Amino acid sequence: MAETLGNMKRSHMCGTLGTSNIDQEVTLMGWVQKRRDLGALIFTDLRDRTGIVQIIFDKDISAEAFAKAEKIRSEYVIALKGIVKKRHAVNPNLPTGEIEVFANELKILSEAQTPPIYIEDEDDVSENLRLKYRYLDLRKPKMQKNLMFRHKVAKVARNFLSDNSFIEVETPMLTKQTPEGARDYLVPSRVNPGKFYALPQSPQLFKQLLMVSGMDKYFQIVKCFRDEDLRADRQPEFTQIDIEMSFVNVDDVLSVNERLLHRVFKETMNIDIELPLQRMPYKEAMERYGSDKPDVRFGFELRSINDIVKNCGFKVFADTIKNGGDVRGININGNGDKFSRKDITKLEDYVKTYGAKGLAWIKISDEGINSPISKFLSEDEMNSIIERFDGKTGDLLLFVADKPSVVFDSLGHLRVEAAKQLGMLDKNEYKLLWVTEFPLFEYDEEENRYVAKHHPFTSPMDEDLDLLETAPDQARAKAYDIVLNGIELGGGSIRIHSSELQQRMFKALGMTTEQAWDRFGFLLEAFKYGTPPHGGIAYGLDRLVMLLTGSDSIREVIAFPKTQNASSPMTEEPSVVDEKLLNELHVKVSLDN
Amino acid sequence: MAETLGNMKRSHMCGTLGTSNIDQEVTLMGWVQKRRDLGALIFTDLRDRTGIVQIIFDKDISAEAFAKAEKIRSEYVIALKGIVKKRHAVNPNLPTGEIEVFANELKILSEAQTPPIYIEDEDDVSENLRLKYRYLDLRKPKMQKNLMFRHKVAKVARNFLSDNSFIEVETPMLTKQTPEGARDYLVPSRVNPGKFYALPQSPQLFKQLLMVSGMDKYFQIVKCFRDEDLRADRQPEFTQIDIEMSFVNVDDVLSVNERLLHRVFKETMNIDIELPLQRMPYKEAMERYGSDKPDVRFGFELRSINDIVKNCGFKVFADTIKNGGDVRGININGNGDKFSRKDITKLEDYVKTYGAKGLAWIKISDEGINSPISKFLSEDEMNSIIERFDGKTGDLLLFVADKPSVVFDSLGHLRVEAAKQLGMLDKNEYKLLWVTEFPLFEYDEEENRYVAKHHPFTSPMDEDLDLLETAPDQARAKAYDIVLNGIELGGGSIRIHSSELQQRMFKALGMTTEQAWDRFGFLLEAFKYGTPPHGGIAYGLDRLVMLLTGSDSIREVIAFPKTQNASSPMTEEPSVVDEKLLNELHVKVSLDN
Repeated sequence: MAETLGNMKRSHMCGTLGTSNIDQEVTLMGWVQKRRDLGALIFTDLRDRTGIVQIIFDKDISAEAFAKAEKIRSEYVIALKGIVKKRHAVNPNLPTGEIEVFANELKILSEAQTPPIYIEDEDDVSENLRLKYRYLDLRKPKMQKNLMFRHKVAKVARNFLSDNSFIEVETPMLTKQTPEGARDYLVPSRVNPGKFYALPQSPQLFKQLLMVSGMDKYFQIVKCFRDEDLRADRQPEFTQIDIEMSFVNVDDVLSVNERLLHRVFKETMNIDIELPLQRMPYKEAMERYGSDKPDVRFGFELRSINDIVKNCGFKVFADTIKNGGDVRGININGNGDKFSRKDITKLEDYVKTYGAKGLAWIKISDEGINSPISKFLSEDEMNSIIERFDGKTGDLLLFVADKPSVVFDSLGHLRVEAAKQLGMLDKNEYKLLWVTEFPLFEYDEEENRYVAKHHPFTSPMDEDLDLLETAPDQARAKAYDIVLNGIELGGGSIRIHSSELQQRMFKALGMTTEQAWDRFGFLLEAFKYGTPPHGGIAYGLDRLVMLLTGSDSIREVIAFPKTQNASSPMTEEPSVVDEKLLNELHVKVSLDN
Repeated sequence: MAETLGNMKRSHMCGTLGTSNIDQEVTLMGWVQKRRDLGALIFTDLRDRTGIVQIIFDKDISAEAFAKAEKIRSEYVIALKGIVKKRHAVNPNLPTGEIEVFANELKILSEAQTPPIYIEDEDDVSENLRLKYRYLDLRKPKMQKNLMFRHKVAKVARNFLSDNSFIEVETPMLTKQTPEGARDYLVPSRVNPGKFYALPQSPQLFKQLLMVSGMDKYFQIVKCFRDEDLRADRQPEFTQIDIEMSFVNVDDVLSVNERLLHRVFKETMNIDIELPLQRMPYKEAMERYGSDKPDVRFGFELRSINDIVKNCGFKVFADTIKNGGDVRGININGNGDKFSRKDITKLEDYVKTYGAKGLAWIKISDEGINSPISKFLSEDEMNSIIERFDGKTGDLLLFVADKPSVVFDSLGHLRVEAAKQLGMLDKNEYKLLWVTEFPLFEYDEEENRYVAKHHPFTSPMDEDLDLLETAPDQARAKAYDIVLNGIELGGGSIRIHSSELQQRMFKALGMTTEQAWDRFGFLLEAFKYGTPPHGGIAYGLDRLVMLLTGSDSIREVIAFPKTQNASSPMTEEPSVVDEKLLNELHVKVSLDN
């Protein structure tokens, strides 16, 4: 039933046709979006990657084509020849709405059953069904635009990096399992019985070895793997823009990466971001925004009132400070009247999800100060608090008292939540900033030891070197994150390039020399033979594209994503495999564990 | 001991300096290639990715720098400031040989132990040692050039494809195991106990699904995996330039790919290859060159003499033909005097490795015809044979009589071997051609059934459709390979795009409908909803770069290759992993098999 292409050659893409093509004969190919019969005329919307154009089959032009056109249904694949004509009833909603094509020849290249999902952006079916029929889901204009946009981002990044002397080098996918970091995907080796490869969580060690080898400037857009529980918006495999450079300090890395981001925003969004980007030390980010990835599109900054309330009559505040905690607040400037008592109770419920025990508040209105805690505070104390926040009529002050981590976390999220409720988060505003000077370590309470905040190859700041042994919690790292609208796009650091310092670092992390050599011996060995100072960064490409396309999930910008349980309803992987194959790999399934 | 970079910023790369920089102050960073002390002067060759430049430390310029310079050894990493001066004794072997740099400041950024291998292209150590210290091996100028060249090839290919409306789409690395093809690498799933992913042998099915989804033109430069025994020059992971397009026939695919190759050769080698490339049906390639990947840089073409010798007195010839075999030969034109009887005996040994039982020969010299078989042939037969090969004085004719596959294989290799011995294989001559119209099937004698010559999604030629059931061995495919100097660079086909034809194909391959649906159900399902005609190609990037750089092995153009037993002497993968990890993955090591 289906016809072959024969010698027909496509002359134009559907969405590119316009008034400049009027009276031309064109050859088009694509999918039937819909068909309407109007007696002697059949109207069809033909769709390809570039858009839709209206086709008319007229019995008087070609009875043969008309007869075939009577058979076509939605999603049939057709090829046709026809003449472009000016349209009488212009369709202003369609880029090709000023023209239509009168067909004089038609081939049906492929029939189609009724698809299980509609090929329309707003088709509201379950994600599972969308993923099962992903090849149909990807026919939706929005999904096609997302993938084309992703291609463009990768292309612009690659060309920028090439233009700036970076060399793309492919690193291995079958690598060595290391116990640091997230859980690895493992691959049994057939020719090395009982041994396993690991799929890389990142090319970190290889890119550092490339610096040792003098490649000078490396990049790679590369798949990485983490076998984590797919809560939130994660995928077992994800794509990094991975960069490393030699003979650089923090400023050098930041500066070339700002120019990279500038180019990406300019060439994919036509947005000029202002350089240099804002840079903010971690400590300042925490104190002002309660977050190491602050959304700086709006204010509502945190301020401490410890000095004011440490001896006040409000027990909750005073006791918290006595016990080493913090009292901090934010000012929802000028929006006090938008939050009723009920709304504030909801905000209190919200901060409780971040561990806060409550939310104190002060509202400043024409009638004066309204606050459940005012009766516990002296007038001086109240005035000082209001002064601290430049409080004015119409303001709403919100406070959390708790241990510092809870205060930062709950207020950091609260300011974003309030801004969201106030409609202040503009998707089309892009505020990028660097957060720098991260702590070198964080204390892992489960493991009862310091772990690397970034990773164990991150260099301490020169001025904090001595703290490595004396006060590791105060040591800062030459580490930086790039943050867009409150979301971390990527991060990196200047690395340790001396074997001795690397061993001090491992020691601070509680590793013995033996353990360190067992795990990272080849890196320590490599560092013995002349290692340049080096550093780099890695961006999450999926997340970057998600943000730039305004998508709600990274699954919207990945062609064939996995579901929450790391499977695919379409290809049905993972799957049970033949025991013979497992025998060859020297493994057995063992479901008892 | 090692110093920090501080605020020093590199101003130039070593290899870029020349007479235009004379009297400038430059800041350079790199590795010490060697150091020579000449009393009050210390000479150092400084190396980076771009090349080498001579540095002079002069006590009178900076005693401090001089004192530090006394400590530096080979492979130390240093940073220095200095003034570029014209060199008195020009070194014509060095691109920077007309200048030298008089240093006035020196920092030792990293010390180096004596490296276990020399950082010189011609260092003749074992490959195992080179791979163990790959980060040192990659310091060699040749290896750095190879990786930079590889980057350039990928970049040119990407930009060409982007310019021609191809979209790079990433396909999954964690896919479904399928029983067709080579052995898969498997990955146990933690959240789906007892189930496994497979690493892709190619994105074949996904790129076809992208065509079903209307992406129209796809490409990807992507890692693929095959768990095969690494005889010859193979790697467990390799890189493909993978391409697929919709609404095309064979000519369309070949034509855009020729332009791609033209661009790659032009921009990476400055070579203009002539388009269109030669196209040769498989049958012609076999009959003229005994190979489906003929080296057409030289002649020595095969010709059959079956008609002449079928009844001749030379039993070996006559009997072979009687038993359904073939007698074919080649003419080593004008080079007969270069092959002694001994040499010919060696050639005979050579063809025996391809299954031939012997090598008959006729030499035409000034003294007449010299041949061990002349006594068995009539004068007419001898004259006809010589005429068949346009035999002239100085020619050497070589013959193999056997079943056709052995004749083709041994003569196909013999003509190349003879050309090689005659020094006729010019590495700098690049002869590309398309081999087309491959057989659709080949008979697998082990499995006693037809298997797909290309893969089971390859479309038969329109005119051979009916042969699918009646004479599958004669059916030709819309398949093509691109061949460079006798080596297959890539191959592809127009795919089957109809569910019905795909099922006929599976049937011809001996699969039941159930088996077919079990293995490729999602593709057959996808084909129901409107599938465009489509086709594509995949290139082996490693092999392409190997040929263009004149390297002897793909390991010379891969940053971190594996050894013959699929391991790495550097990172020591694969490795034994903790049993706890395996328990989480629901597998056990089982060494008994």
